[in-house]
Parts: sequence; structure tokens; C-alpha cells
Amino acid sequence: MEQSRRVALKLAYDGTNFYGFQRQPGKVTVEGELVTALAKIGAIKSARECGYRSSSRTDQGVSAMGNIVSVRTSFPVASICSALNSELNDVWVFSAVEVHEEFNPRAANQRWYRYYLPKANQDRGLMEEIAGKFVGVHDFSGYSRKDKRNPMRKIDSIEIVDSGMFFSIDFRAESFLWNMVRRIVWMMNEGSSGRMPIESIGPGSARKPARVGLSPPEYLVLMDIDCGIQFPIDKRASIGITHTLAKRIRNTAMRLVFEQKASELISTGTSR
Amino acid sequence: MEQSRRVALKLAYDGTNFYGFQRQPGKVTVEGELVTALAKIGAIKSARECGYRSSSRTDQGVSAMGNIVSVRTSFPVASICSALNSELNDVWVFSAVEVHEEFNPRAANQRWYRYYLPKANQDRGLMEEIAGKFVGVHDFSGYSRKDKRNPMRKIDSIEIVDSGMFFSIDFRAESFLWNMVRRIVWMMNEGSSGRMPIESIGPGSARKPARVGLSPPEYLVLMDIDCGIQFPIDKRASIGITHTLAKRIRNTAMRLVFEQKASELISTGTSR
Repeated sequence: MEQSRRVALKLAYDGTNFYGFQRQPGKVTVEGELVTALAKIGAIKSARECGYRSSSRTDQGVSAMGNIVSVRTSFPVASICSALNSELNDVWVFSAVEVHEEFNPRAANQRWYRYYLPKANQDRGLMEEIAGKFVGVHDFSGYSRKDKRNPMRKIDSIEIVDSGMFFSIDFRAESFLWNMVRRIVWMMNEGSSGRMPIESIGPGSARKPARVGLSPPEYLVLMDIDCGIQFPIDKRASIGITHTLAKRIRNTAMRLVFEQKASELISTGTSR
Repeated sequence: MEQSRRVALKLAYDGTNFYGFQRQPGKVTVEGELVTALAKIGAIKSARECGYRSSSRTDQGVSAMGNIVSVRTSFPVASICSALNSELNDVWVFSAVEVHEEFNPRAANQRWYRYYLPKANQDRGLMEEIAGKFVGVHDFSGYSRKDKRNPMRKIDSIEIVDSGMFFSIDFRAESFLWNMVRRIVWMMNEGSSGRMPIESIGPGSARKPARVGLSPPEYLVLMDIDCGIQFPIDKRASIGITHTLAKRIRNTAMRLVFEQKASELISTGTSR
């Protein structure tokens, strides 16, 4: 064993089968599984003892390509990713780097979330217009679940890209309030579908919106977090994860073909 | 209630979460769920009492777009599909027709199976050549799991179509032996990938193959069964099923995008 030092881990996960990120007694969560795996490989004794810190507590159903946690451990950095991945399902640890003891992934320069909004005749121009209302510094208390934090936030950018069956909507900000992205997306969807007057939309809107709903979590992905350090991909872990994902991709693609063909057949009675 | 008569039902199902088609005590099977749903809506008392008959007992993991069962019932044909679908998950009954009492879906004119073989540098020409060896009347005992049935079968056609990530391979025959399609596909894959000499492949091959494996079930779909009768799509059921499938398609498409992006990111460290 090497000497104990702080290590930051970068991980992706499929949120579908987790009860959210944060540890909860009796629930299968991303953090819970990760801490259990860290203990199982002997990298930590407990979350408390190792000074466990995490960056973003994603909600139930939300997936991630790059969440970050850090722990104090003496486990070799070169093998910790592969060791963890052999214990984990639906979570893939793909980078580990030694960091200084003060490193706290909660304090990020920028977070990047992507929402894959299913297309349904939304007006793309209206969607861009609505997005523009949210960019910049605003009081987002009307667009988040209430908590004790300062409701002033700065959204650096909202970028909409056409992505097949979806509009991919990228949000970048130093930090977001609870449910903030999903509430903004809900508004963008309502407004661009003509179900909500445009002048009632936006953090500084003159008219208060009748209600601000919450778009479903399964289309939201935490893409990346900039904590000011580089996370080189662990090559050995990468090979294992890519192999696992290739099998999942084939299976998911098969499901999609089946569902699409079945839907065609049953709606038209002809197409195969 | 109308008078009791025999009704044939056509159904699609996603085989992923079932323990195969056939009823088994203590297991969730397609047939088990269907019979339970028929009893629950009051269409039958029990499988035995209603003279339950089915067409094809697909293996665990195999899906279907058009399997057929028949029962004696007095439940109105116009509403039985919707009533059943409200009780079923992953099974969609999309057509119901009155048939004569002797109708037995087991006695089909032709069955159509499709295997979605994931592409992996197979030689398409070799694959066609191997397919040709299996078409026609042959003793398929080397290409099936042993049972008491006559091993002579006639494959009417094997058709290979390029389908994105897959080769879609359509098999048509009056009937197939147990595991026959999956064993032939395994051979087609081995032979067209150069892992098996071509002269040892085929039901009448001079050299006996070293071994005949079994390709995985999750890529096999029972597409349709021709029992000599028309199955018009039930319009009300079609609307409900299409709605259910549209939501599944969005979710599956989202999973696929996530898995593909995660794989790109983790294998290259760059692409988003």
C-alpha cells in the first residue's frame, strides 16, 4: 500500500436503477454503491473516516457522464478504477488522480448539464428565445425547489442542438439550484409548444407563471464538472468499460428496433 | 355476455423480463401472465376449462410481434384486447377474431422468425452462402436441441438484410425445431467470421462441425405466424399500445444516446 493521500475519482452512471445519487439508508444509490465498493476493495474504512466529498447530488433517475468524488486512500491510483468497476453495476469509474488535501469537488468552476428533450412539435425559435431569458445572473427562486441557499445564480450559456429524436439542451453554470434545470426545461417546452404565454416565462418575467412544472429526470445527464484539474482516462478501466457498454449498446439498439417495429406494425397493421 | 365461442388472439411481447413463453409454476412467463389476465377480466375460468391453445413456445429472452393463442370465451371480441392490455405489462394483445372450434394455432402454414445479428466484420457473401445450405428439406437434428419430434424440416427461405447495427436475418418455415434458428445463426456467424471451415457447415455437410453453439436469445423475434386467417388490428387497442410504445421508444432512445456518448467519452476521452 502506498501512503494515504487524497484521490479524486471521475465517474459515469446510468441513473435508471438508482434511488438518486446521495446515500440513503436502505436504498440503492450511486454514492451508496460507490462507498460500499471503496470499502470492499479496501480503499477506505468508511465514508466518514476517509473524508468523502462529492460534487453534485443528482436526483433519482438522472444519469451522469462525469460526476466527481474524492476520498483519502492509500490504494494505488493506477488500479483503483478497475478495482472499483469490478464491484459496480451501472456505475463506471474512469479516472483517478491524486489531488491536494484541500480539494473539494463541490467547489466547481463550471457544471455542464444536458437535457435530451423529446421532440414534439416545439417551435425551435421560441425555444431559443425562452432560453435567452434565463441566461445571465438572476434570482431563480421561482425555478427551483426551495432550500436555504442563495437563489441568485448565473447561467453562463444554454445551447440547443438538434439531436435526432431529441433537442439536446446544454446548460452551463458554476452551480445550479435544486431542480433548476428540469424546471427551466419544463418552461422551455411549455412555452415553445404554445401552452404558456411567452411573457410569463423567465426569471424576471413581469407576469408570474401560473405554475412551473418539472420535466422528467430520465432525460437529464450531468455531462461534466470543471474543478480546475485534469482527469486523464484510465486506460485499463476504459477497455473494461467500453466492453461492457458495447454489449449494452447492442442490447439497447435491439430493444429500440423491436419497439419501433412493433409500434409500426400495431399502429398501421402493415409495416415490418 | 355473448355466447361462448373460440377466439384467437394475436400478441406482441418484449421477452426481456419473462422466463420464456410457456407457463411454469412460480415463474413470470408470457403465457402465465396472459392466462392470469384472461381470468382476471372474466374471459375464462382457467386455461384447462377454456381449451387454451398456443402457437409457438418461444424461449426465455425471445420477443414476438405476432404470437397466437386461442381460447373459448364469451367475452366480447370488440373489447377483449383493450381489457387484456390494461392488465398486462410487456405484452400487447392487438387483434382478436372469432374462429371455428377446431382452430389450432399450433398448426400453422408458416412461421417467420427474425434474428438481429450484431455486425462484427462478418463476410456478407459467406453468410449468404451458408444460409443457402440450410434452405430446403433437411434433417436438422444436428441443429436443434434433441426432442421426440421428427428432425426433418423444410426451411422455405433465409433472407439477410442490412439493418444498421445488425444483419436482420429472416427465417420462414412451417415449423422449426427447438433452438434451430439460434443454432443456424450461430453457424452463420462463426462461418462468415472465418472461425469455422465452410465445408463443415450445413445440415448435410460432409465434415461434422466441431460444435454447434447457440446464439443469444435476446436478438430473436417471432415476427408472424400464418394460420390461414386474417387478424385485423383492434383500433382501440392499437391507440393504447402505440401510446405505451411511444414512451418506451423515447426512453430506450435516450438510453442508447447515453450509452453511446458515455462509450465515446470513456474510450477516447474527448467526444461528447
